[in-house]
Amino acid sequence: MDVTIAIDAMGGDHGTRVTIPAAVRYLKQHPTDTIVLVGLPDAIEAELRTIKTSIEPRLRIQAASEVVGMDESPQLVLRSKKDSSMRVAINLVKNGEASACVSAGNTGALMATARYVLKMLPGIDRPAIASFLPTYKGQVCMLDLGANVDCNAENLLQFALMGTALVYAIEHKNNPTVGLLNIGSEDIKGNEIVKQASELLRQSDLNFYGNIEGNDIFKGVTDVVVCDGFVGNVALKTTEGLAQMLGGFLREEFNRNMFTKLAGLLATPVLKAFKRRVDPRRYNGASLLGLKGIVLKSHGSADAFAFFCAIERAAEEARGGMLHHISEHIEKWHDACQQKTREAS
Amino acid sequence: MDVTIAIDAMGGDHGTRVTIPAAVRYLKQHPTDTIVLVGLPDAIEAELRTIKTSIEPRLRIQAASEVVGMDESPQLVLRSKKDSSMRVAINLVKNGEASACVSAGNTGALMATARYVLKMLPGIDRPAIASFLPTYKGQVCMLDLGANVDCNAENLLQFALMGTALVYAIEHKNNPTVGLLNIGSEDIKGNEIVKQASELLRQSDLNFYGNIEGNDIFKGVTDVVVCDGFVGNVALKTTEGLAQMLGGFLREEFNRNMFTKLAGLLATPVLKAFKRRVDPRRYNGASLLGLKGIVLKSHGSADAFAFFCAIERAAEEARGGMLHHISEHIEKWHDACQQKTREAS
Repeated sequence: MDVTIAIDAMGGDHGTRVTIPAAVRYLKQHPTDTIVLVGLPDAIEAELRTIKTSIEPRLRIQAASEVVGMDESPQLVLRSKKDSSMRVAINLVKNGEASACVSAGNTGALMATARYVLKMLPGIDRPAIASFLPTYKGQVCMLDLGANVDCNAENLLQFALMGTALVYAIEHKNNPTVGLLNIGSEDIKGNEIVKQASELLRQSDLNFYGNIEGNDIFKGVTDVVVCDGFVGNVALKTTEGLAQMLGGFLREEFNRNMFTKLAGLLATPVLKAFKRRVDPRRYNGASLLGLKGIVLKSHGSADAFAFFCAIERAAEEARGGMLHHISEHIEKWHDACQQKTREAS
Repeated sequence: MDVTIAIDAMGGDHGTRVTIPAAVRYLKQHPTDTIVLVGLPDAIEAELRTIKTSIEPRLRIQAASEVVGMDESPQLVLRSKKDSSMRVAINLVKNGEASACVSAGNTGALMATARYVLKMLPGIDRPAIASFLPTYKGQVCMLDLGANVDCNAENLLQFALMGTALVYAIEHKNNPTVGLLNIGSEDIKGNEIVKQASELLRQSDLNFYGNIEGNDIFKGVTDVVVCDGFVGNVALKTTEGLAQMLGGFLREEFNRNMFTKLAGLLATPVLKAFKRRVDPRRYNGASLLGLKGIVLKSHGSADAFAFFCAIERAAEEARGGMLHHISEHIEKWHDACQQKTREAS
């Protein structure tokens, strides 16, 4: 299935310098897909000239006269920047001109705009941010990563439904397992909301594994990890911080003296292979789930390779029919609830 | 100041095989301190014979006839095992015969027993679990790590007071900085409890830095990091999981073929130096704070070096007068609150 991806070409710390080379790379590797670059035409054309690429049927420009700043208030952006590259890219998804859109811009503004323009899928109360992380066994889908600081049990169940649909769409894995992030594996552990969520998950048609702990995430104990956005955001950022520190320590130790530098030189292929394996750029692209459209948020500081990975993820979600799978799971859950109500009455 | 440390010799996955060699090592390095080994005399004497060490004035045995299992319910332990090695060790602290105690046993049972026997310090509503983690700049004290799944703003403030006292006692750092773990650095971020806690921290005499994010922990942005026990436990265990995975990947890459194995051999001193720097055993020993006595929880799977580190931490807390510093901070906070009430009326 050929897909068309709308790209907020102006978003992120580096704007067109990153988004456009990433788009060109994507088109080379996916020779039947189409990309629409959304933003200030002058800036887009200047970057295309720099990288010696010209407009062709599969690489179009859609003009947008405004740019959303990284620190602007989402509410202000929503009210006053109706012709921003971010909003116009989302509009293309809304109108069916694109199957998905990708932005490295302001997360709050992207979420608010996407929610306002696209609306929520029926049966989903709140959008969630989901991302994949590397594990021993492959990768794990974790959500919510910061869209919702307070969640009830029903929200956590909906996150599980959405994460299951996302894993199915991306990995074509039937019946992926779902873990509920908690501070112990026993049922009695955790706060009231987590206990209630555990109960709902058990009643659902999902492949619920049970409670998992923080150290189970990277073991790849389950395919999906569900938690509230406060916990998920802290866990994700803490691991980013630890990975940076460990990388820094390793570099320092290899740079300590002549001997260690030589050892580092000889170990270069090994260290490169290690780095490739855990390269966070390969996992760039967080999905804003629960909307009537596919929206991917790239890290603001992403380079062209990282942004390229986010475009790939967007295309995979579209090709995998993610929205359809979410709706299917929601319907099944509602049918099961109605069945239960009938049985009880 | 000479200190006496009571050790639950039977606790942990390995019992006396770990606790006693650790105690002997500690006494060698601290020639004026005393250790009381608490547990089944036969088991303790057998281990002492194995490692060719005899009882001397600085190494005493205190008999206890029961052992707490790693999976026993804390309530059951509290009611039925009144002569457990864990409880007798805590009793020694209560009676003033020891300045602190260390156990690698069942965390829930240790917390419940310590709280029951020692009671809470006036002005502290709930005990917290605190631990040090390595950072770019040195180490950071993080709490709560799992004692309290739900916290209110006042609890978080009390954690901050206790963390400040702990850092002062251990590191002799005047006015350590306190960060409130959140999902953004701006004041508007986070849930209601975190926002209220931020307000209280601003009113306190503590050196409040403001909100910090997960990735700031390992940067060493602050000396103390405060969060509720659910978030802290997930963050801690997630980093443990990530560190294990990265270590595993690194080993795998160095073991891939003849060439990578040779590179690994040449890099051995570098990798050892790196490992030493982030060795989790050096950070073993979580403090149960808020009690009228010093209690350290060692990791259940600790080896003798890790358990030795926990004994050292216990002694440092005692020598640093940690309980006194906590009480001082609590008093200052209550004085400030009364002052405010007077001003308001």
